[in-house]
Amino acid sequence: MTLSARNSLEGTIEELQLGGVMAHVVVRVGQNLIESVITRRSAEEMKLKVGDKVSAVIKSTEVMLLKD
Amino acid sequence: MTLSARNSLEGTIEELQLGGVMAHVVVRVGQNLIESVITRRSAEEMKLKVGDKVSAVIKSTEVMLLKD
Amino acid sequence: MTLSARNSLEGTIEELQLGGVMAHVVVRVGQNLIESVITRRSAEEMKLKVGDKVSAVIKSTEVMLLKD
Amino acid sequence: MTLSARNSLEGTIEELQLGGVMAHVVVRVGQNLIESVITRRSAEEMKLKVGDKVSAVIKSTEVMLLKD
Amino acid sequence: MTLSARNSLEGTIEELQLGGVMAHVVVRVGQNLIESVITRRSAEEMKLKVGDKVSAVIKSTEVMLLKD
Amino acid sequence: MTLSARNSLEGTIEELQLGGVMAHVVVRVGQNLIESVITRRSAEEMKLKVGDKVSAVIKSTEVMLLKD
Repeated sequence: MTLSARNSLEGTIEELQLGGVMAHVVVRVGQNLIESVITRRSAEEMKLKVGDKVSAVIKSTEVMLLKD
Repeated sequence: MTLSARNSLEGTIEELQLGGVMAHVVVRVGQNLIESVITRRSAEEMKLKVGDKVSAVIKSTEVMLLKD
Repeated sequence: MTLSARNSLEGTIEELQLGGVMAHVVVRVGQNLIESVITRRSAEEMKLKVGDKVSAVIKSTEVMLLKD
Repeated sequence: MTLSARNSLEGTIEELQLGGVMAHVVVRVGQNLIESVITRRSAEEMKLKVGDKVSAVIKSTEVMLLKD
Repeated sequence: MTLSARNSLEGTIEELQLGGVMAHVVVRVGQNLIESVITRRSAEEMKLKVGDKVSAVIKSTEVMLLKD
Repeated sequence: MTLSARNSLEGTIEELQLGGVMAHVVVRVGQNLIESVITRRSAEEMKLKVGDKVSAVIKSTEVMLLKD
């Protein structure tokens, strides 16, 4: 099964905060922390919890570049 | 100067392909390759080239999570 | 395997146009045509062609609502 | 009046949940359920309620493809 | 007719560049130039040309904030 | 320091509403009001408050066009 989104970073959930509609999830990927905001419903249906192995999936058109 | 986007990953450009309107940029971030599609105009104005140090900047609402 | 994106619509590719960096794909989903723009690289690596069964996957934050 | 977003799917609101800032809306489109997260302010100003006819509007660059 | 996207800025097209799949459009909005990348198909079907009055429509979740 | 996002509009915060996970920010840019939804964490870490000078930053692929 292949998804067209070109970025997938494996990591571990370090923090999970549920709001009314959205959820804020912090994922450790190597030395970086990746923050994700998904729906609360997805967080609940996926039964996400601290320590879970997940991948952060990102479309290439959503990746901006910054240069000094 | 602070941007509200919560994710910033430092890396080095490994590949750069220019199209008519868009540009495809591959950035090495540690052991991962991050792919970014930006406008050709930004790639040119930023004078992006292979070997440049850049950061990949991503809003948290654009980070999906995948769990096995 | 579950993705946090909440929308997945099964359909069949009706049309595929490759550009230099991006690809335009038209997918029939029941009585609707869904149009998707992905990277040319994804279209090629996924070996997409007319007639392929695919799902259109969309994050809920990307779905706007229009009311008359 | 034409919008550049290429996808517009007509449906009926089946469920509406208001949070502090965002609102989660479920729209029936034929045999599919489409989930949308918009601002609470838009939901209120549009006076959205269960049973309303709405269209789900989606830019083509936000439609990913998944192939088995 | 109301769209949930909360930002709409009226302006005039100053420049239009067509690529194979995408189109780059520059819109003057008061003293600002707003740049938009849409599909070539939308640009053609909307018959966009320099001098056209258009509105730039942007979802609030796509607006980042930068503070010095 | 240059970001690939092509739109940056200077303005002043007129209103700020914090939710559990997200924050809704209204920015006056000349004669327009621009609405932004960012994470509550960004709003807090950036210490955003009414009266702050900020720029609204938007990727060109997130700008749709509407024509009468």
